Amino acid sequence: MAGEQRTILRVLSGETVSPPPIWLMRQAGRYLPEYRATRATAGSFLDLCYSPEHAVEVSLQPIRRYGFDAAILFSDILVIPDALKRNVRFTEGHGPQMDPIDEGQILALETDGVIDYLKPVLETVHRLRAELPVATTLLGFCGAPWTVATYMIAGHGTPDQAPARLFAYRYPEAFAYLLSLLAEISAEYLIAQIDAGADAVQIFDSWAGVLGEREFQAYAVGPVRKMITIVKARRPRAKIIAFAKGAGYMLRSYRQQTGADAIGLDWSVPLSFAVELQKEGPVQGNLDPMRVVAGGQALSEGIDDILQHLGNGPLIFNLGHGITPQADPAHVAELVRQVRGGRG
Amino acid sequence: MAGEQRTILRVLSGETVSPPPIWLMRQAGRYLPEYRATRATAGSFLDLCYSPEHAVEVSLQPIRRYGFDAAILFSDILVIPDALKRNVRFTEGHGPQMDPIDEGQILALETDGVIDYLKPVLETVHRLRAELPVATTLLGFCGAPWTVATYMIAGHGTPDQAPARLFAYRYPEAFAYLLSLLAEISAEYLIAQIDAGADAVQIFDSWAGVLGEREFQAYAVGPVRKMITIVKARRPRAKIIAFAKGAGYMLRSYRQQTGADAIGLDWSVPLSFAVELQKEGPVQGNLDPMRVVAGGQALSEGIDDILQHLGNGPLIFNLGHGITPQADPAHVAELVRQVRGGRG
Repeated sequence: MAGEQRTILRVLSGETVSPPPIWLMRQAGRYLPEYRATRATAGSFLDLCYSPEHAVEVSLQPIRRYGFDAAILFSDILVIPDALKRNVRFTEGHGPQMDPIDEGQILALETDGVIDYLKPVLETVHRLRAELPVATTLLGFCGAPWTVATYMIAGHGTPDQAPARLFAYRYPEAFAYLLSLLAEISAEYLIAQIDAGADAVQIFDSWAGVLGEREFQAYAVGPVRKMITIVKARRPRAKIIAFAKGAGYMLRSYRQQTGADAIGLDWSVPLSFAVELQKEGPVQGNLDPMRVVAGGQALSEGIDDILQHLGNGPLIFNLGHGITPQADPAHVAELVRQVRGGRG
Repeated sequence: MAGEQRTILRVLSGETVSPPPIWLMRQAGRYLPEYRATRATAGSFLDLCYSPEHAVEVSLQPIRRYGFDAAILFSDILVIPDALKRNVRFTEGHGPQMDPIDEGQILALETDGVIDYLKPVLETVHRLRAELPVATTLLGFCGAPWTVATYMIAGHGTPDQAPARLFAYRYPEAFAYLLSLLAEISAEYLIAQIDAGADAVQIFDSWAGVLGEREFQAYAVGPVRKMITIVKARRPRAKIIAFAKGAGYMLRSYRQQTGADAIGLDWSVPLSFAVELQKEGPVQGNLDPMRVVAGGQALSEGIDDILQHLGNGPLIFNLGHGITPQADPAHVAELVRQVRGGRG
């Protein structure tokens, strides 16, 4: 079957593939002139997320240019609060904003209709799978409940996610209910993406790093385990990557505790620790995105470090966080070339 | 001698003191009405740092109110770039700003006169030691070279310190020179604080958590080790706390590599890992500051967790980061009471 050609699925099954497959978080993004051109015609950022025509186009752009081993659905983790009618908007230069939610509003959240609301995203997944080369893995994704909740509580991005941490201390029951609800609808959303054609899915817990041990267990591990349990119960062959950015030492038991097939590593994860984590299963990461901006020696050195430490085990080569707008597209071409074995 | 009564110095020598001594990072700060009153009369924030009269007053305020086991010099880590003539200013609502430094300006930095420029800070230390109760430890401090450099490169605070990471990749030699220079003058500055009356000093590496393994060794460990080596060579009895916020798994060898007597732990350090770190020597931390804002059960639970895990070894009780302006002073009183053994 076609899936067997997809190197990322082989890695997700525990196989070592050499050279390792590669894709980049935020690979469809502002560093690409063709993305900026499509973005300029598509209306608002959310319009772009909900337009299958435009979302397919920007998802395919980095595949055409670099031949990455995976395409990732172009969307945003905040489509879930948008579908929950939290008035999400992306204003240029301000980052995402939405109506901050309080205790009473959490208990009144209505989840009926969420998957229907997200049908344009599922249509994007469906069209993408039809248009992608057969060997290219198609990744779906969503945000982890904790990370999505940090925006829902504060109404915007916040340093150290202090408002959500404080809310969780003050209203532990309402907060647990919110995470539980988000875990359930996010699991449904991932199942719908898989049914629409996604080969594997990634769960982004971008703000997991600000949690103490007790909270990491309750707010990061627990809800992600719940999501993965639901998805795997209903789609037993589904492969799932869990990316808990900044989780550091707590990654030690994260794979086992959540049931993820692979764990994503941010660039601050020491490679000596990553080697230990890889003994338990596939890892993905973890080049510092600033090395791609810098290029040259900084880029080559970072690639070499990762390949030397992790190249002999199951590895999906990636950045340790999303690629930034100031990255030179030529540096990305050089990155792909070097990971695939070419040099200088 | 008087120092033997100071519980924090006993802990820094490896002794277990029960109940553990306590102080709070940023304990002289905006959550206290008496601080806000002094601040309103003192001129700019830097004026306050350079006025021994006012700086002594705000340093003493939390000692009077709570009887903390340590007073910390009221100052800022950015007095070093200010003394290096980088035009540092603190504008209300904007955070610290200074002139961003480039490669050529780094090589032209002039360090003569830096300690002279900081004489008002040393005068504050001198007066504080005379005014403090004999059992109260007086802590001096400075920023670690990496953290100070992140501000000098960008000219202000930045998410993930991307400008400094990029600069370090692009201009590794100039960056190494900057860190080396900062390590040398910061060590001189700490020695001057010790000579002025500081019982111990803390080095704040607030942004250590964004560094990959190679960079953590080069930019966090190396310069701090250099500072500690210089200070201990010239003041062999000096006690030094090193606080690498966000360093996570890399804390495993940080104490041994830097030569610090104690290591500070941020609130994201798992207590199960902190127990391991405490086997190698004293630790300080690590209550989530948001628990102090929340109060009640969230506060008590956090205190209990720390005391249960770390209370039977050398511990300086502290927060995992600075106390925030919205903390209720009554919650701080409750914190001190509970750490000292009272409950209910």
